[in-house]
Amino acid sequence: MLNFTHNISTVIYFGRGQAAAIGPELRKRAKKILIVTGSGSVKRNGVFDDVIKEVKGSKTPFIEFSGIKPNPRLKSVHKGIEICKKEKLDFVLAVGGGSVIDASKAIAAGTKYKGDVWDFFTKGIKPVEALPVGTVLTLAATGSEMNGNTVITREDAGRKLAFGSPVIRPVFSILDPRYTYTVNKYHTAAGVVDIMTHIFEQYFSRTEAADVQDRMAEGLLRVCIKYGPVVCENPRSYNARANILWAGSLALNDLIGEGKEEDWASHAIEHELSAVYDISHGAGLSIIVPNWMRYVLSEKTVNKFIDYGINVWGLEKNMDKMKIAREAINKTRAFFNLLGMPSSLSDVNIGVEHFKKMADSAVRDWPRVGHFKNLLAKDIVEILKTSI
Amino acid sequence: MLNFTHNISTVIYFGRGQAAAIGPELRKRAKKILIVTGSGSVKRNGVFDDVIKEVKGSKTPFIEFSGIKPNPRLKSVHKGIEICKKEKLDFVLAVGGGSVIDASKAIAAGTKYKGDVWDFFTKGIKPVEALPVGTVLTLAATGSEMNGNTVITREDAGRKLAFGSPVIRPVFSILDPRYTYTVNKYHTAAGVVDIMTHIFEQYFSRTEAADVQDRMAEGLLRVCIKYGPVVCENPRSYNARANILWAGSLALNDLIGEGKEEDWASHAIEHELSAVYDISHGAGLSIIVPNWMRYVLSEKTVNKFIDYGINVWGLEKNMDKMKIAREAINKTRAFFNLLGMPSSLSDVNIGVEHFKKMADSAVRDWPRVGHFKNLLAKDIVEILKTSI
Repeated sequence: MLNFTHNISTVIYFGRGQAAAIGPELRKRAKKILIVTGSGSVKRNGVFDDVIKEVKGSKTPFIEFSGIKPNPRLKSVHKGIEICKKEKLDFVLAVGGGSVIDASKAIAAGTKYKGDVWDFFTKGIKPVEALPVGTVLTLAATGSEMNGNTVITREDAGRKLAFGSPVIRPVFSILDPRYTYTVNKYHTAAGVVDIMTHIFEQYFSRTEAADVQDRMAEGLLRVCIKYGPVVCENPRSYNARANILWAGSLALNDLIGEGKEEDWASHAIEHELSAVYDISHGAGLSIIVPNWMRYVLSEKTVNKFIDYGINVWGLEKNMDKMKIAREAINKTRAFFNLLGMPSSLSDVNIGVEHFKKMADSAVRDWPRVGHFKNLLAKDIVEILKTSI
Repeated sequence: MLNFTHNISTVIYFGRGQAAAIGPELRKRAKKILIVTGSGSVKRNGVFDDVIKEVKGSKTPFIEFSGIKPNPRLKSVHKGIEICKKEKLDFVLAVGGGSVIDASKAIAAGTKYKGDVWDFFTKGIKPVEALPVGTVLTLAATGSEMNGNTVITREDAGRKLAFGSPVIRPVFSILDPRYTYTVNKYHTAAGVVDIMTHIFEQYFSRTEAADVQDRMAEGLLRVCIKYGPVVCENPRSYNARANILWAGSLALNDLIGEGKEEDWASHAIEHELSAVYDISHGAGLSIIVPNWMRYVLSEKTVNKFIDYGINVWGLEKNMDKMKIAREAINKTRAFFNLLGMPSSLSDVNIGVEHFKKMADSAVRDWPRVGHFKNLLAKDIVEILKTSI
């Protein structure tokens, strides 16, 4: 196990009716707020009404900023920053999924920064401060509600980049499983794939003896495998939604990654796909991840796949090592398929034309693509080729 | 899953050399501090020197308060409060195991309270504020380094009582696995039993569908089973000490208990034993826990034991339900024995004479003894009888 600092400061209000915590939180922390939303689903399903009731109850003046899209755009972030600066807002309340939260975090950091917020994504500059961010989560997927990361797309440049800082970790998040009831089957499934992939990115690691982290990671994967099909088929199952929602937050709040070297190659590749083609992140991951697994499997990495196969999929211990590993990867592919997620690039109408460009771009945008196995541009092209 | 608020604010500095974080933390938070220690082991093994070097480096004036005993006494807490008030101290730094930390927390809360700190333990009064507490942990066991609980014994009354409040949750804790190298085999083993029992108290619950919490709890138990014997036999194994240390903190920092009804009957019974006989908490638990398991096992509770047997001990799924449950309990007993922990009250020279008194006292001191199965005084006597 490596050294680490554990500092997960987000207060989570989890369960039915927890929107009631918004009022007291805002009274404590905010004078005038920006409420950020997406394309309108929170207005149709009643979540926005719950939030506004609480905000009004707390007598906190607010300005609404709606229309954040999936793969949130830099230009929306710029717009939000402009409003915050002009109106002297001191708090950002994100009501939505990961895209709305990521945009809110970038707005919060950009408002307190003199330069262009894009510097944080491209120049390695770290924000010194940010407006505090609160979230009301409506989709189990990114874990953004409990971590200090944000991913933004600059459309004109075809670049989807991330940065992380403790100053943008939300101060509180409301996780009411019922707020995820109206997410459709496709986005629910994409969320489950995203959660599982976050776990894989931290689980598949060369760090030895991080058993605490790895046994918890396996536990969270088993929760996804048990409840993933249930939330897809029975979207109003409270217990299934609750388990997927809480697993999603714990999958990427640092808990299972701290003390370990992490991988993140599948995300590096997928970010290029969704930057160029604007596909759903979960769909991209569903295509890439099992092929990444097959590509990195070797005598050197097989032991981690054996743990995965036995502890997550319950495979028989006494089989041949490579057989356990391959069977575990096949089970992963079959599970994503069962959720209705795509297996190949052709399923989402992506051809071979930009493979080289995307691979070069991934290598340029990430300090290193992959740690469990370091990938060069040619490796990324190979993985994309097996994904056709 | 039940509603919960997750707010685990302690910053953990985990790993080799993390005592270096003490200086910056004190500069940020303290003007003049109380350093609380136990019976002298931290002075013999060099931990105290590391701490003092950092404290002096931060130029924070300090007063030392040593001599806290296992099952820490109310009179020591009173003494510490007197020093803090007289010297106008504003921070308590605990250097030791659970007893030192628990005493420090009670001192921290008592210093800011006009009445007698014992009120918090007996009258249900909650502290409004406390001095901030930091810890340098030297024993993996109680989890006190990351939670808001304290357990204190009032010797003249033979009472060992607890209270919990967010205001006494440590603001930071230093977890350097090497600081646990010199813990002897007996106390190392007792710590492992304590950690496992904390997990059991939260795991064995009537709350349904808290899979996230339960799969993580099982993972932590598996870490204890893998590394418990290693830390006993090979006390300087960094990886084994690291895993047990981190598992101990996560076992009782709220993570695996929130969203669930918890049990705590074994602790209610053991607190009476160690209040009356001053035995080691872990030894008392080793005797009680498997007998508590046997006593509460029934057709109504068997499913939880099946999860425990299969997911923690890897038992064969296809056996008879009750057989899996009994086998899992036998494995628990055998594991505690393997660690060198006692199986029966006679092993620690405790006779039958105070069974009734202890049972009555447990029922008096706890709002309810047991939630997985509610225990009356007569049930506690029965469990004690099977422990002879």
